[in-house]
Order: sequence, then C-alpha cells, then structure tokens
Amino acid sequence: MSAVPSVPDPGPVAPARERDGALRERARRVIPGGMFGHMNAASLPASYPQFFESAQGCRLRDVDGHEVVDFMCAYGPMIVGYRNAEVDEAAVRQARLGDLMTGPTERMVELAERLVGLLPHADWTLFQKNGTDATTLCVTIARAATGRRKVLVARGAYHGAAPWCTPYPAGVTAEDRANLLHHAPGDLEDLRRVADTVRGDLAAVVVSAFRHDLGRDQQMPDPAFARGARALCDETGARLILDDVRAGFRLDLRGSWEPLGVRPDLSAWSKAIANGYPLAFVAGADHLREAARSVYATGSFWCGGVAMAAALATLRVLEREDGPARMARAGQRLRDGLAEQARTHGVGLRQSGPPQMPLLLFDGDTAFERGMLFCEVALRHGAYLHPRHNMFLSLAHRDEDIDAALAATGAAMAAVAARFGRS
Amino acid sequence: MSAVPSVPDPGPVAPARERDGALRERARRVIPGGMFGHMNAASLPASYPQFFESAQGCRLRDVDGHEVVDFMCAYGPMIVGYRNAEVDEAAVRQARLGDLMTGPTERMVELAERLVGLLPHADWTLFQKNGTDATTLCVTIARAATGRRKVLVARGAYHGAAPWCTPYPAGVTAEDRANLLHHAPGDLEDLRRVADTVRGDLAAVVVSAFRHDLGRDQQMPDPAFARGARALCDETGARLILDDVRAGFRLDLRGSWEPLGVRPDLSAWSKAIANGYPLAFVAGADHLREAARSVYATGSFWCGGVAMAAALATLRVLEREDGPARMARAGQRLRDGLAEQARTHGVGLRQSGPPQMPLLLFDGDTAFERGMLFCEVALRHGAYLHPRHNMFLSLAHRDEDIDAALAATGAAMAAVAARFGRS
Repeated sequence: MSAVPSVPDPGPVAPARERDGALRERARRVIPGGMFGHMNAASLPASYPQFFESAQGCRLRDVDGHEVVDFMCAYGPMIVGYRNAEVDEAAVRQARLGDLMTGPTERMVELAERLVGLLPHADWTLFQKNGTDATTLCVTIARAATGRRKVLVARGAYHGAAPWCTPYPAGVTAEDRANLLHHAPGDLEDLRRVADTVRGDLAAVVVSAFRHDLGRDQQMPDPAFARGARALCDETGARLILDDVRAGFRLDLRGSWEPLGVRPDLSAWSKAIANGYPLAFVAGADHLREAARSVYATGSFWCGGVAMAAALATLRVLEREDGPARMARAGQRLRDGLAEQARTHGVGLRQSGPPQMPLLLFDGDTAFERGMLFCEVALRHGAYLHPRHNMFLSLAHRDEDIDAALAATGAAMAAVAARFGRS
Repeated sequence: MSAVPSVPDPGPVAPARERDGALRERARRVIPGGMFGHMNAASLPASYPQFFESAQGCRLRDVDGHEVVDFMCAYGPMIVGYRNAEVDEAAVRQARLGDLMTGPTERMVELAERLVGLLPHADWTLFQKNGTDATTLCVTIARAATGRRKVLVARGAYHGAAPWCTPYPAGVTAEDRANLLHHAPGDLEDLRRVADTVRGDLAAVVVSAFRHDLGRDQQMPDPAFARGARALCDETGARLILDDVRAGFRLDLRGSWEPLGVRPDLSAWSKAIANGYPLAFVAGADHLREAARSVYATGSFWCGGVAMAAALATLRVLEREDGPARMARAGQRLRDGLAEQARTHGVGLRQSGPPQMPLLLFDGDTAFERGMLFCEVALRHGAYLHPRHNMFLSLAHRDEDIDAALAATGAAMAAVAARFGRS
C-alpha cells in the first residue's frame, strides 16, 4: 500500500497506464467504443484502469501492476473472495468429471434442493446464466400463470438489459415496452393508482431488494410498502416478483425481503450465487410450478456442472461464516471510518444503503466532481471505489483491508476538502 | 463397448437406471417438471439417461456408469472433445490469474482481434453468454442503425428462447411478437413478398446457417436464396443477420455463409466458440459500429476471462487441425456406414444436412417410432443419438469411435427392420 501523506493530497496524478492504454487502443479497433456495458471505464475517472491482470481475495491487480483493495467485487459476483480456495476446489473437482455435457449433472439437483431448503418462499428453481435471463423468465412465468400482460416496476429501477427493461432506448421499439408500467419508487399510493389503470391485466409487480438507482442515495424498503405491494398482488391476482439479482446473498441468505416478513411469489437471482462463476436462477412458489413448467426456458450452457458446484461451495462458505453479518460488519467499519474522515475534513458526505452495499455521494456534487476526485485519489492510494454505483463488500474484506482502504480514503477526503473547501 | 449381436436385436431392454431414476424423482420436487429446456430427456426414449457423471473426448458416462459415444456434443458446444487438454489448460492458466474481475482481461482484446481476423464480414465483436443474447443483440443493433422495427425470419426457424423468438407461446404476449414477420423457408419470392408489406420499416432479415428445424429433413441454403436475401437487404436498407449460433465453427471457420460468397452485416455466435465454456458473441461490419456502441449490452459475467481464454485455445485447435474438414470426414464415415446398414436391412433412412451436423429420419416415421426404437437400441449398444434433433460431430470423434458407433447402429438398424419390416 502507498503511504498516506500527512498533508492534504495535492490532487490526482495519473498512475502509469502504459499497458492499459495500449490495450484500450487495440480494443477501440475491434470493440465498438473500445468497451461495452457496465464495466466500461469511460464514465470513471480517467486514471482508472479498464483492464485487469489478476485478483486474489479482495485485491485486484490491473494490467500495469497496480494493486488495489476492490470495493466493486466484479460489480457483485465476487462475494467470498477472488479465487476462493474452497469454491475453486469444488469447481475444479467438477471440471475433472465434466462441465457442460449432453444433460445436467447431479449438481443441478443438489443445488435446487439446497436453494429450496434455504429460501422460505421457494418450492422450485430454474437455472440460467444472466440476471436478465432470470428477471425476464419471472415475468414470462407470471404471464403464463395469469394470462395477463402488464408488468409494474418502480421508475428508475434496473431489472436488466433486455429490450423490455433496459434503461437505454437505442434499438428498443415501443412494442417492446408496451406492457411495462412505472410507479413512483416506494410510493404505495402510486403503485395502487397505476395498478388500477390496468386492473384485470396486471400480471406482475417487480420489486428490487432495495432502491439502488445509479447516482442517487440508496433507500431500504419501507416495510409498509413491501406489505402493501404483497397485499395488492393478493387482491388483484398479480404475482409479486423480487429482483434479488444485485443484492442476493449479501443482505439475508433467505432472500432480501425475508427480514421484512414479505415473501414474493417469484424471485430472480444471479451475480453472487457462485462467486463469479456464471449462473443465475429463478425461485418460485408451488402455485407457479405448472406455469414455470409450461414456459420454454433454455440456453446452451445453463446445465453446466462447474458453476453449480461453485454455487454449492459458495453457499456453504456464506452459511458457515455467517456471511451477511460479517459483510455488514466490514461495511460498517468502512462507513464509520469514512464518516469520521468526512467530519474531520468538514466534507459533506452521504452514505446510504446497507453497509454490505454502500454508496458514497457528496453534498452539492451534482456533476460528481467531488466523487470523481475522491475516487481518483483513493485509487492512487490503493482503494478501488465507485463515484456513482453502489459498491460491494465480501467475506475477503478483513479489518486490515478496510483499514488500508481507509488510509487511502483519508488522502482522498483531504484532496476533496483542499479542492472544494469545507461544505 | 457391447458386442454386436449376430441376429436382429429382439428390441430394447432398458439399461439399469437406478441413480438416474432416483435423481429424476428428487428433481421432480424442486424443478418444475423435473427438468427444463432442450436438455429435457422427457421427449427422448424412456431408457435414455437424464443425468451425466463425466465425459472425456467423445465419450459420455451417465450417472449409472454407462459409457456411450456421444453424438450430441452437449447440443453443440463441445467441438474439440470433452475435457480437451489444450483448452482446459488455457482456462486453468487464466483461472489462476482471475476469471471475472471488476473489468475485462487482456483476453477480451485478444479474442476480439482473433475473431475480426478470422471472419471476413466482421470488423468488431461484442461478447455475451447465451446464443439468445447474441441474436437479440443483433436485432437490437439493426433497429438502432435503421430506426426501423420489423424483423423477418423463416417460418419454423429457431433463433432463441426469448419472448420475441421462442417457438413456444406460454407467457408470451402479442406485443412481444408484434414486429416479427415470417416467410416460407428458403423461398426468395415469399421473402420479397413479405418484405414488401413492411417496406420502409424492415430493420433486419435473420437467416440460419442452414435449415435445421426439429424433426424435418435438414436443408443446405440455396446460394440463389442467400444472394437474394443479401440483395433485398441492400435494396431496402435492412440489415442481414446470420444466426450462426448452432452451426458456427463446424461448417467453415470464417462463417457458415462464407462458402456461398454471401456476407452478413451482423452475425450471432455461441455454442462451440469455447468448447463448452459459456460464451457468445456478435460480430459486425464497420458501418454498424456506431449503432453497436449506442446499444446497452451487458451481463454480470460477460467479461469473464476464463471462457475467453478457452475460446482462444479452441480456435487454435480448430484451425491447426483443419476442424471443419476433419469433422466432415468423421460425419461422412458415420453417414456412409449408416447408409450401408439401411440398405442391408432394407430400411428407408434419410440423412440430411452437413455431415458435421447430421440428422437421421426414417421413411414413413411420422410419429418417430422407428427413430425412437433405433436410438434406444443404439444407446444400449453404446451410441447416444437423437431421434429428431440434428446431431454434432467433434474433433474427438476418431475413426474407431465412429466404427464403435456403427457397431451399435448396426444392431439398432436390425431392430428397426425386425419391428417395422423392410420399407
């Protein structure tokens, strides 16, 4: 780790990025825009790396050899540490037998049993490869069960990148969105009002584990809203779908709404289920079993045994280590340290969402200039943070990693205070 | 391998399936219908296994220990042999560094460069995880480029399992299909007629590498149709999309329509690209680069380095070993042997499609009874064939494997002749 300067940091100086720059240049020729999707570094500080060489635990090494404590965890999938020995060993054991074959392996049954045992709302599961596969399949199953078309989601919520739900309009037709309705986030009255406009044709209400829209303070669900959404579905015959793709296994191993006492009819999962091995799944209640059977759900690699073996091992580690609680403690240590640094430097910092999935926003930072500077300096001192997107803790974030990151953020907070003054 | 009986086989006797039966029973409780998608054994002969234990080369071992020569290759993804040492070694080398991290690895650039170098129609690529991701993204890019909505496909052609293209209607709304048009397969006049009905709103024509609809004789594309589809797109401004998901890398490493001299604007790939490691990609021409950049394309695991390392190794093996030609030779050896057996037993057998992706159908077999019996007996004697779906050859199918399979099919052909008589 770099030493923490005792005087306010003079501002970011870009670290050497020779290999990263050369790779970006090569990528620009053969990949539109040089990169695509949520891992595109174009919207991050210019000194951030785009390409990575290796990872271990919570440490990430970019192609120019700079090592950082990573608070993105591959945008969620990494949950028990990069290259976790127990998970990788389970994966290798399965790979030595076979991964994708002309049918599933016993691992599929074991994992389905494990998930049904773990999730109180689930009586069955189906496996996929993308979070979008899982949310789309939930909606399709709800439509098959109800014979209805309309789907109601919170305005601004992210439920995937398919045309029916993508937040970006390029290439999307009006017909793709014809059955998608929006309500004001967390507003039960508005949820009911919009539902009323399609009464008799409402197939599903899709909810997020909590509100984690890009670039705005996160918000935990109001239990009254959760109960109200459940009641609305029970009254109207619509199905309640919990999108647990992003938050799943970090807040509660039984499902993110279980602590609220509200159970969905269907839930969509992906990201952290197998510690980075590609896997997604849908879980559902018994009354949707026949509808789920009737829907054609398939993909070339969905039955591969290695990702399922990795998922079984990931769940074993998470349960044994009391995963969500430990990640919450690590996240709280980071949060407390950051709050103290913000106070010390007189910087207005807002920290929102569950400590396992923190978001940092600076007061008055509408153009994210403070956030960008903060992240840029923190990165130079060894912590990879995100200025707009929620971050992720993992079981690999030990106290000493958090403290190393706090040394980096101390320099970054000083730089923000020096550049923008006390707020 | 089982010995070939010298008298016509008396008919199938189901092999022991104790573990498979127990797993199916457990699966029925926690997976709707006990299994889902294209690997569901429900439509196969009752004696077929659902669950597999291990695989090596072209040999597959089910959970009850029966070993067979596999002609499904995991429904296409396996192309250089299960657990191919060179591919797995490349994957392990990358896994020791890191698979999915907080950004892509250098492998992504290398693979994009490799594919752009290999495919004459491609100037760029984007990576995904499912074939359906790739076909859907092609359509979305074509719409973004043209500002149009309509997509024209051959009736009965399979282009994925998303609501816009799935062959099964459960849970699909009319709006999901509002912009999908069908023409009679291989009929250029009908293609032009249907295109005329939406002139000015036609975004794309999607073609398959060749016609491989379930349960009917396969058909190679007529070069006149291919040229006509290309000309129609050039005249109307629609984009020509080649769905090479199923056939890709088996017919021609440069793309399945390259031998026809017809180049698509966009192509969708998956299945065999990484010998079973989950990966898909879209390739496109330069004039679609900006449209591709404008579309939001992303998934949690799309940047994982292991599948890309596996793809690089798979391509190296395929090129070095002259993959398509060698698979064609192996497929032709199987085809010739089967034709000889059919003649000997006076059984009317139709073999269609490219030898690398053979389909077997029996004359007068509308209910697939001959096909089911044939496969059932062949399986018992050590060859895993499919009664309705095209099959796949791989580089792991050596002469001795084909000959072992032919010993099995000899018994099967005799059983068909004995049960159904000479045709």
